[in-house]
Amino acid sequence: MIGQDLIGIQDLTREQIETILDTAQGMTEVAGREIKKVPTLRGRTIINLFFEDSTRTRSSFEIAGKRLSADVINFSPSSSSLNKSESILDTAKTLDAMDPDCVVVRHKVAGVPQRIAELLDAPIINAGDGAHEHPTQALLDMLTVYQEKGRLDGLTVAIVGDIAHSRVARSNIYGFSKMGAEVRVAGPPPMLPVQVEEFGVKAYSNLREALDGADVIMALRIQNERLKGAHFPSIREYSATFGLDRAKLRYAADDAIVMHPGPVNRGVELSHELTDHRPSVILDQVRNGVALRMALLYLITGRQPKGTAPE
Amino acid sequence: MIGQDLIGIQDLTREQIETILDTAQGMTEVAGREIKKVPTLRGRTIINLFFEDSTRTRSSFEIAGKRLSADVINFSPSSSSLNKSESILDTAKTLDAMDPDCVVVRHKVAGVPQRIAELLDAPIINAGDGAHEHPTQALLDMLTVYQEKGRLDGLTVAIVGDIAHSRVARSNIYGFSKMGAEVRVAGPPPMLPVQVEEFGVKAYSNLREALDGADVIMALRIQNERLKGAHFPSIREYSATFGLDRAKLRYAADDAIVMHPGPVNRGVELSHELTDHRPSVILDQVRNGVALRMALLYLITGRQPKGTAPE
Amino acid sequence: MIGQDLIGIQDLTREQIETILDTAQGMTEVAGREIKKVPTLRGRTIINLFFEDSTRTRSSFEIAGKRLSADVINFSPSSSSLNKSESILDTAKTLDAMDPDCVVVRHKVAGVPQRIAELLDAPIINAGDGAHEHPTQALLDMLTVYQEKGRLDGLTVAIVGDIAHSRVARSNIYGFSKMGAEVRVAGPPPMLPVQVEEFGVKAYSNLREALDGADVIMALRIQNERLKGAHFPSIREYSATFGLDRAKLRYAADDAIVMHPGPVNRGVELSHELTDHRPSVILDQVRNGVALRMALLYLITGRQPKGTAPE
Repeated sequence: MIGQDLIGIQDLTREQIETILDTAQGMTEVAGREIKKVPTLRGRTIINLFFEDSTRTRSSFEIAGKRLSADVINFSPSSSSLNKSESILDTAKTLDAMDPDCVVVRHKVAGVPQRIAELLDAPIINAGDGAHEHPTQALLDMLTVYQEKGRLDGLTVAIVGDIAHSRVARSNIYGFSKMGAEVRVAGPPPMLPVQVEEFGVKAYSNLREALDGADVIMALRIQNERLKGAHFPSIREYSATFGLDRAKLRYAADDAIVMHPGPVNRGVELSHELTDHRPSVILDQVRNGVALRMALLYLITGRQPKGTAPE
Repeated sequence: MIGQDLIGIQDLTREQIETILDTAQGMTEVAGREIKKVPTLRGRTIINLFFEDSTRTRSSFEIAGKRLSADVINFSPSSSSLNKSESILDTAKTLDAMDPDCVVVRHKVAGVPQRIAELLDAPIINAGDGAHEHPTQALLDMLTVYQEKGRLDGLTVAIVGDIAHSRVARSNIYGFSKMGAEVRVAGPPPMLPVQVEEFGVKAYSNLREALDGADVIMALRIQNERLKGAHFPSIREYSATFGLDRAKLRYAADDAIVMHPGPVNRGVELSHELTDHRPSVILDQVRNGVALRMALLYLITGRQPKGTAPE
Repeated sequence: MIGQDLIGIQDLTREQIETILDTAQGMTEVAGREIKKVPTLRGRTIINLFFEDSTRTRSSFEIAGKRLSADVINFSPSSSSLNKSESILDTAKTLDAMDPDCVVVRHKVAGVPQRIAELLDAPIINAGDGAHEHPTQALLDMLTVYQEKGRLDGLTVAIVGDIAHSRVARSNIYGFSKMGAEVRVAGPPPMLPVQVEEFGVKAYSNLREALDGADVIMALRIQNERLKGAHFPSIREYSATFGLDRAKLRYAADDAIVMHPGPVNRGVELSHELTDHRPSVILDQVRNGVALRMALLYLITGRQPKGTAPE
């Protein structure tokens, strides 16, 4: 994958996903060391170009880059000065002229990382664009499930919440489907994508049916302002119907795990108790995020094996 | 102190303070070198988690960490998105899952670093919490006094200003008292803590009496908005009564030094002339801040001596 | 230049400019390597003190410092808390006490870097101050022209736009004049400096005359709010008269190049087509910016040759 962009899970083959997950599994070992640093990417320059605020994703990429000994430059343009697509692309081209080895891009508009990738020499990693894709989240989710279950193939994965507006849902639908899992989505009907079956997933407006026998339950963060459009009068009502707690877990497989991309609205998507305790694996997802991003940065910007450099 | 939290001076023994000051004195030498960097903490990850804006403290920790070769990640959540204690703790736990070796926390609410420390695996250093404590400031102040006076024991230290609302005052009261100094506090009565004598210090509303024979005078930054509550009609009046200048210094010991945690309101807490010249040692305090924080990061996150690692 | 400030091109001799450009030309080679990092400034601390927002300049200095293995600390005080010149200088002195090897300063008020330089031990590099100077921009512009033309002496350089309010124009006027080029300025009369001829340049209000035979054309960014003062009713009118496109280029030399300090207002100072294609060299300017700043950081903070250190 040297020099390639990563815009979405949709573009990856099953083999590529396996390579990424294998490499990431190896990287998890570095975080446990006393000296959490390897010289692999010394002298590489990675730019975090975040047009949208981010807590965990930006820090995760920064820590991942630094643990590989890369130089990481954070760049968060104020949205005010960059409201035109033209200036976004010019900003990206300007940074590209400083010869970075990789540019990590987040933007609230779907498609911006792709447009930037078309213009830049440096490879682009999409760190989330609008409701399109968030591929590194899906990859760290798959890594976490693999660690828990020993496989992805044949599992049943239920994603619960505002599927239609979630880039996390979309990337996970592509990813788990490619890896042979059965993916179900559940939520209030206005939050389910139109013609979602085209993605090869089954849609449920009844949570109990969606969870029936599921091995993995992934809750998504709810945006208050979207509830009204979904004909939910209140957070409380959403939580009663689609929020997860121990009682509702009994519909799922006995050893089901619960995931959330964070940050959790406690008591809404997940009960307080479930947020903090097994079978939820939320902090494992965060921990795996660093290893997964180390793997990607290594695979995309690492040293080219001798004799394989393009002419 | 490997792996321990530093929440407040109140929790430290006299022996621990001596160890920190000795180690910091050794670190002051690094800043004078041409190559101001030692490999001590290579591969360690330090997160600066500042919920409250900070100039010197954040930079001081960042420089300290980098001079020890650690990777330093700055993280300043916008207060808007994190106004609930719940999200503060979840943010901290998320960062903790990225396996930092130390998290430096500043928050405007007293007690937040302690609550974070209870939840996290990583050791926490309190970089200032509300009106509670600012332990690294007190330690760098003690280091500065030790360099000037050769001892702390038996000195008379007068702290002047809004004692009741100052975390700097509180940490210094604990620190200098533990080290055997006599601590006095002076200010308008509403700015003196209730039952301050319980801390083992003497309170004065008359500056001249407080300064009488003092070896160290520490002026605190005044918040304009607090003056009214202290029945001071204006900055000018405060300055006339409690502001320090050369004339008022004659009440103190001949070789008294003047300190201030910065930034100084020039002409208010200190005259312009006293801000810039001896016997004030304000920039020495700043310089010592880097060495002191290097010492703490080293003591808390440094390599464990062989054979002493917990099983 | 070890330990010297760089406040403006006006203070440099022709020989110093040649040294800087030669060193920068050598540094351009580093960006092309797989490992874009040299150990030259390991253990040096560089502080980016930007009182004014900046995209490319701040990133360029940060990348330059890191490629030389220096530790780079970004510090962007909120203008709100620092609106008094006094606090600006105290902030700078505080940072100076942390023993940086160089402080890079940008401020919207002309003269601030000079005042800071007078107070600080650390050498200062001016990264742009009001309408005064932006010396590193002019140096990277000269480097770019040198690469294109093989010389500066004897060239004709036309600078187009709001000359009176541009620090880029001013620094380039000094620089190219010193290096033996003929400098012309062109713009609406209210945007031409009073008595501009004193600088040794010729002023034109007719673009065609200014471009006649020019080897280098440098367009400046227009601030909308200044157009009214220049009696231009609209951006469209400005663009028709002073905006550059391929048609107007025919007045210049056949091999003329077009420069812009960025960001370009597309369709205003330069046509879309000219922004993206030769003979414009805008991205070369950006690329050279990193090499030029590496050269300056090296020349100013690099190791002193043995035996030449001041006693």
